[in-house]
Amino acid sequence: MAQESTSVHKVVIIGSGPSGWTAAIYAARANLEPVVYVGVAKQDPGPVLPGGQLMLTTDVENYPGFPEGIAGPEMMMKFEEQARRFGTTVVGEDITKCEFSSDGSPHTLHTSSGDTIQAHAVIISTGATANWIGLDSEMKLAMTGGGVSACAVCDGALPMFRDQHVAVVGGGDSAMEEATFLTKFASKVSVIHRRDELRASKVMQERFLNKENAEVLWNKTVIECLSEPDQMGNEKISAVRLKDTVTGEESELAIKGLFVAIGHSPATKFLQDTALEFDSAGYIDLKDRSSKTNIEGVFAAGDVADAKYRQAITASGMGCQAALDAEHWLGDKGLI
Amino acid sequence: MAQESTSVHKVVIIGSGPSGWTAAIYAARANLEPVVYVGVAKQDPGPVLPGGQLMLTTDVENYPGFPEGIAGPEMMMKFEEQARRFGTTVVGEDITKCEFSSDGSPHTLHTSSGDTIQAHAVIISTGATANWIGLDSEMKLAMTGGGVSACAVCDGALPMFRDQHVAVVGGGDSAMEEATFLTKFASKVSVIHRRDELRASKVMQERFLNKENAEVLWNKTVIECLSEPDQMGNEKISAVRLKDTVTGEESELAIKGLFVAIGHSPATKFLQDTALEFDSAGYIDLKDRSSKTNIEGVFAAGDVADAKYRQAITASGMGCQAALDAEHWLGDKGLI
Repeated sequence: MAQESTSVHKVVIIGSGPSGWTAAIYAARANLEPVVYVGVAKQDPGPVLPGGQLMLTTDVENYPGFPEGIAGPEMMMKFEEQARRFGTTVVGEDITKCEFSSDGSPHTLHTSSGDTIQAHAVIISTGATANWIGLDSEMKLAMTGGGVSACAVCDGALPMFRDQHVAVVGGGDSAMEEATFLTKFASKVSVIHRRDELRASKVMQERFLNKENAEVLWNKTVIECLSEPDQMGNEKISAVRLKDTVTGEESELAIKGLFVAIGHSPATKFLQDTALEFDSAGYIDLKDRSSKTNIEGVFAAGDVADAKYRQAITASGMGCQAALDAEHWLGDKGLI
Repeated sequence: MAQESTSVHKVVIIGSGPSGWTAAIYAARANLEPVVYVGVAKQDPGPVLPGGQLMLTTDVENYPGFPEGIAGPEMMMKFEEQARRFGTTVVGEDITKCEFSSDGSPHTLHTSSGDTIQAHAVIISTGATANWIGLDSEMKLAMTGGGVSACAVCDGALPMFRDQHVAVVGGGDSAMEEATFLTKFASKVSVIHRRDELRASKVMQERFLNKENAEVLWNKTVIECLSEPDQMGNEKISAVRLKDTVTGEESELAIKGLFVAIGHSPATKFLQDTALEFDSAGYIDLKDRSSKTNIEGVFAAGDVADAKYRQAITASGMGCQAALDAEHWLGDKGLI
């Protein structure tokens, strides 16, 4: 590691989801010898997983190129293999702190092993993590394809939820959107909300509530996920235990799917002491239609800079843009 | 077809490259019952191919998910299969003219079979096609199989070019890619470039220049294609006249094939009589970081709206955005 401290990398990529690996594939093919820090350190909120949120996704059906679907972790292995094939260096550590330069000198990054590295260009692709309720039973089922998900758009069309009663936790616009999306597939969609009114805009509320198979359970929180083994012996959600936030009364709701839609948080904690600009929701602000941030030589891609689309394919496209933007920037500065 | 004229489609997607199929995958999974018009009509400039430019690409190495690479046509077959799997209707025709409404009524599209269809939302993903130098002698030979082509991958392996000296015009990544491909078949490949340095990435330059039978002719433009009749009496290219962009000196290079690789133009001719806004280069202008055009309910994705990145993965990401934007727009308008 001592050697790394004295040499300046052309491109360091932070994060190893679809955007990070795609940036690495393109940067490596452009002979930029990229170094990917995969991100293994635990950060708030939630764990930062190498491979990103797809590591929690059993079946990816909407990433183009895999008509039969592909398991999220398998897909990320393919991405990594492709990045390595063209000469990407992969480091099993995280970047814990950034000191971005403003005078054209290399940026300084601190690693989770306590080392310091330097890079002319930095691509931030640390993603975002779904906010979860915080129950052990919830996390266990979410990690094992047990019918608990934080993304209705990704998972809602899966056969296991078709013509079943499912529930959505949340009360904002994206909860309404996810719930409305689910009404197309599920026999019934119950929105579970802790208050007696929704934060969502009226139009979003109406769109959901106008569906025949839509309902809202007011003043309820989920306190436990219950499960049963399926024919294969895999635990699948069978019900949630609810607690009334007004009366304290407990009840049970039999469901075959639980979608947690209480927002996402971009993984930006390690950037807090920098001059990097964020939007009002805390996502990295990008210039025009590029991957450029407000800091020279610092680019961002994927969910850490996208509160809107948040798909594997859009993140990958952004990763490609970041690598091409970084390559052009390095060329413009005479650094390659 | 009469039935189609009376019903209004939720989403019609024009074009069947990476962006079109990705839009279809997402739109179909959102139950929007998308209809893809694949594009088979000949348009200026050049032919519009179903499947887009990837149908002319032998090995795609940079689309994430295929570490060993994948043939372009095979990749497009997978995309199409995935779109069909979720309920996309595929029509083997092109859209020849659009009448976009401005009053909230459905848009009207004319098909190459002379039919008229209606759609609430339209996603334009017609891509871009190759540019030519613009010489009469070039076009004449290109139109008659005279040894002038804009696609080395399609034509480079033809017997007429085997073990012959051929030339490539251009200096970008795709010019290098075409030239490198040709070194497998031709006895010698001369890249003719108007400047004293190439725009292509280093790795692409090196890959070409490392070939024994590769050379670059700097500061040269082609001002005429010369030809001779073959045994059958058909005119075939025999040489190009070159002009030095620095000294103005003219010279002649004896070749048996000329491959033009000087960029692309968006396939927008069928949109010329609409109120759609384009950028200075003729690409469809998109709003902010979305797929929205200046016309309500009209979205664009892929190379037809992207002069900058033009990759399969970026086009796919844009296709996803277009489908999600269209879905939100249809929801906002109460059309789904």
